[in-house]
Amino acid sequence: MSSTERQLHLNLFILNTGHHEASWRHRDTLPRQAADVHYYKRLAQTAERGLLDSLFLSDAYGLPPTIRYKVLQGLEPFTLLSALAVATERIGLIGTASTTYNEPFHIARKFASLDHISGGRTGWNIVTSTGNTTAFNFRDEGLPRHEERYERADEFVEVVRGLWDSWEDDALAVDKAAGIYVHPDRLHPLNHKGKFFAVRGPLNIPRPPQGHPLLVQAGASDTGKEFAAKVAEAVFTAQNTLEDGRLFYADLKSRMRKYGRQADQLKVLPGFCAIIGDTEAEAREREAELHGLTQAEYGVYRLSNLFKIDLSVYPLDGPLPYDALPETAEINSQKGRHQLYLDMARREGLTIRDLIMRTASSRGHYAIAGTPLQIADEMERWFRTGAADGFNLMPPYLPGGLDDFVDKVVPELQNRGLFRTEYTGLTLRDHYGLARPSWREYGREHASASRSFT
Amino acid sequence: MSSTERQLHLNLFILNTGHHEASWRHRDTLPRQAADVHYYKRLAQTAERGLLDSLFLSDAYGLPPTIRYKVLQGLEPFTLLSALAVATERIGLIGTASTTYNEPFHIARKFASLDHISGGRTGWNIVTSTGNTTAFNFRDEGLPRHEERYERADEFVEVVRGLWDSWEDDALAVDKAAGIYVHPDRLHPLNHKGKFFAVRGPLNIPRPPQGHPLLVQAGASDTGKEFAAKVAEAVFTAQNTLEDGRLFYADLKSRMRKYGRQADQLKVLPGFCAIIGDTEAEAREREAELHGLTQAEYGVYRLSNLFKIDLSVYPLDGPLPYDALPETAEINSQKGRHQLYLDMARREGLTIRDLIMRTASSRGHYAIAGTPLQIADEMERWFRTGAADGFNLMPPYLPGGLDDFVDKVVPELQNRGLFRTEYTGLTLRDHYGLARPSWREYGREHASASRSFT
Ligand SMILES: Cc1cc2nc3c(=O)[nH]c(=O)nc-3n(C[C@H](O)[C@H](O)[C@H](O)COP(=O)(O)O)c2cc1C
Ligand SMILES: Cc1cc2nc3c(=O)[nH]c(=O)nc-3n(C[C@H](O)[C@H](O)[C@H](O)COP(=O)(O)O)c2cc1C
Repeated sequence: MSSTERQLHLNLFILNTGHHEASWRHRDTLPRQAADVHYYKRLAQTAERGLLDSLFLSDAYGLPPTIRYKVLQGLEPFTLLSALAVATERIGLIGTASTTYNEPFHIARKFASLDHISGGRTGWNIVTSTGNTTAFNFRDEGLPRHEERYERADEFVEVVRGLWDSWEDDALAVDKAAGIYVHPDRLHPLNHKGKFFAVRGPLNIPRPPQGHPLLVQAGASDTGKEFAAKVAEAVFTAQNTLEDGRLFYADLKSRMRKYGRQADQLKVLPGFCAIIGDTEAEAREREAELHGLTQAEYGVYRLSNLFKIDLSVYPLDGPLPYDALPETAEINSQKGRHQLYLDMARREGLTIRDLIMRTASSRGHYAIAGTPLQIADEMERWFRTGAADGFNLMPPYLPGGLDDFVDKVVPELQNRGLFRTEYTGLTLRDHYGLARPSWREYGREHASASRSFT
Repeated sequence: MSSTERQLHLNLFILNTGHHEASWRHRDTLPRQAADVHYYKRLAQTAERGLLDSLFLSDAYGLPPTIRYKVLQGLEPFTLLSALAVATERIGLIGTASTTYNEPFHIARKFASLDHISGGRTGWNIVTSTGNTTAFNFRDEGLPRHEERYERADEFVEVVRGLWDSWEDDALAVDKAAGIYVHPDRLHPLNHKGKFFAVRGPLNIPRPPQGHPLLVQAGASDTGKEFAAKVAEAVFTAQNTLEDGRLFYADLKSRMRKYGRQADQLKVLPGFCAIIGDTEAEAREREAELHGLTQAEYGVYRLSNLFKIDLSVYPLDGPLPYDALPETAEINSQKGRHQLYLDMARREGLTIRDLIMRTASSRGHYAIAGTPLQIADEMERWFRTGAADGFNLMPPYLPGGLDDFVDKVVPELQNRGLFRTEYTGLTLRDHYGLARPSWREYGREHASASRSFT
């Protein structure tokens, strides 16, 4: 139980009233507060009371056509995280930004600003966007092809890191007497000209306290995993079984070597949805209650959307029409989830209705209903047998599901020496045990002449 | 002194250590805190203690090549304002976003989110960007032409307002029993296809508390003023004399009629830089102290940049080389300031050094050094003689210059019945006495069928 033993990392995935798609209909949730900062403040403060490494906001730039049935994304990540930064002191703050529908200068700067505001507690979940709902809010055409999105993401991240490194750590001189505010020779324009972007730099904000905010990713396709192996420091992933979790973990870490990276420079965090009861029966009852609130017509809609086929013409209590389904390779958006659901349905012989219920709690992420002990056991098993460095916690309903986790599961993990009993570091990198990229090590390769700064 | 009498509106323009270009060298300023949220929190709380209508952050997307001599922009507006929203309760929060280097969907959503977070206290300073420093951080080419920037701005604002109106005020149903989260027929996709943008909508966040965050603008050219007359509800402007202020005020308000708008639907707020002393001599001394810290080589650089001619080859104590200067019409960026400086130099027969000093305090905005009484007199004169509905306060140095204003000038304005003695409203619109755009009035014209929402 010494503090030098490997410990697990916990991230809270905040989603409005919770991850169960029917959570908003539960009597204990507060769906009217989707856009109320006080609601999110309370969640963040509870997570911090539980000593969690970080909290995380997902994001998309469109309103799902199924909004009749399900809750909103809620507030926009940069604005919400910044409000949470001043309402908390230690917990990390991870926000999503898409490389497909943004400009690298804006993203580099907003994360740098948030990193300053939070005292080094931010991370960027790098996504390439999924679905045309987002696409049509920017252009009169659908999502770019999967390969092109990742090619752009790759260049995007390179530019963003270059911009963070466009200031040396000690570039701010503030010499009042000599009249030198910034050392011009410690600023390094980027002069980037690539396939997608032309960005001169430098950034108009000093280097972030963490050097680079933490880079997080959640790709599931082969391209996505390769990208993660190259750049990500934490990876969210949906793994439905311990065995799949191990395969993913080993696969991802083994891809890192060719980029000159060590396995422990990337933390694998599978999604984990815990329905907690003081007895197993109580947990099952809660699960049944949530499942009982799901709306089948919405389930059919979302599966039809994923499988790119109208499932409403097939019997709800019959199997998926396997022969009629497109191959995963033909899918442009959400390849990983497509494969996951297909495997799950085949392996477990699920009907359409079964698959709706199996994925209602957490969209294909691992879900468990049980006592705090059972849940801690399961986490320990994943952690100790090479499937996880920690977890992306997806409470089925909020705030209750988080309160229970913090009050009942965290102490159990602490008793086992698996989780911190106090914050020992100040930054998000500290929490995850990841080194701060020094300017000398990372910045030099980007640095070019600074002739334009007088 | 009744509360129904017309009162003036005060906005605090926050700029790092203050508006005097040498303020960062002053012994009482804190230039190391450029990226420290606590510093800005203190400023915001002082402004709120002074019952100011709002505070404002300007913005540009690049690092000036003169950063050796002058302070940073500081933190990024959306992230900073959101942090300030939860650190304050009443004061309005105005942020700048450029229509030239952003996407309308992101801007509509971020301001909507900030409006929810702040409880209806946000405003958007709509700018079209100036200078190539910003331009080259996005593309491998300079700033688009002035006319094209405004054409894009016009379409941009139309899309943003349409997105804010894509939700009726009461679209959120949250009927747990019936399983209806949002009323689909109260969502209205935009289906916008214009010259610059294709945006389908709806937005993925409910209508902002204010309906529309306040629209602010600061154009000085003819096109800029026309745009302001059409869309702006508050206008920042640099006016060097009372007479110019009156002309601008009358000109701008007279342009509103053709857009079906009343004169009081737009508040004109000239920049106002007050160097405050308990005696006039003390104020003059402070001014001289700040002027004494200016760096002539920087002054020459910034004037050269504005006039598009290298002034370093002319004697500092001689006149501007009028014959060699390009006409304002030839200027693509900052036409308004170009004209202002030229007029000032001609009218007052200034040398290059004089012009540097005259514009060092506030870049051509009205500046005064005097006692609280003298300052209140001057404000009252502008306010009562048709030059201003209020002021854009530009303290020469911070935090001291703001403390003095709040502690010494505000009480004087209150004594005269010119300024509120408590906040009477909750939103930024309330403070400025501007009506909330009802969905029925504004939204209808944008609303299209909502077939895609089930
Ligand atoms: C926990 C988790 C969170 C995710 N959050 C987002 C998100 O906020 N926005 C987004 O566009 N995609 C999100 N994704 C999708 C992934 O970024 C990725 O696109 C998806 O897993 C498919 O993998 P691929 O991109 O390699 O095909 C998330 C995925 C997971 C597992
Ligand atoms: C008080 C004030 C604040 C301004 N803030 C910004 C700003 O933050 N960003 C920006 O690009 N331009 C800013 N401007 C410039 C104006 O938006 C406008 O471009 C300029 O006054 C020139 O007018 P024109 O655009 O009509 O040529 C500001 C101007 C004033 C007077």
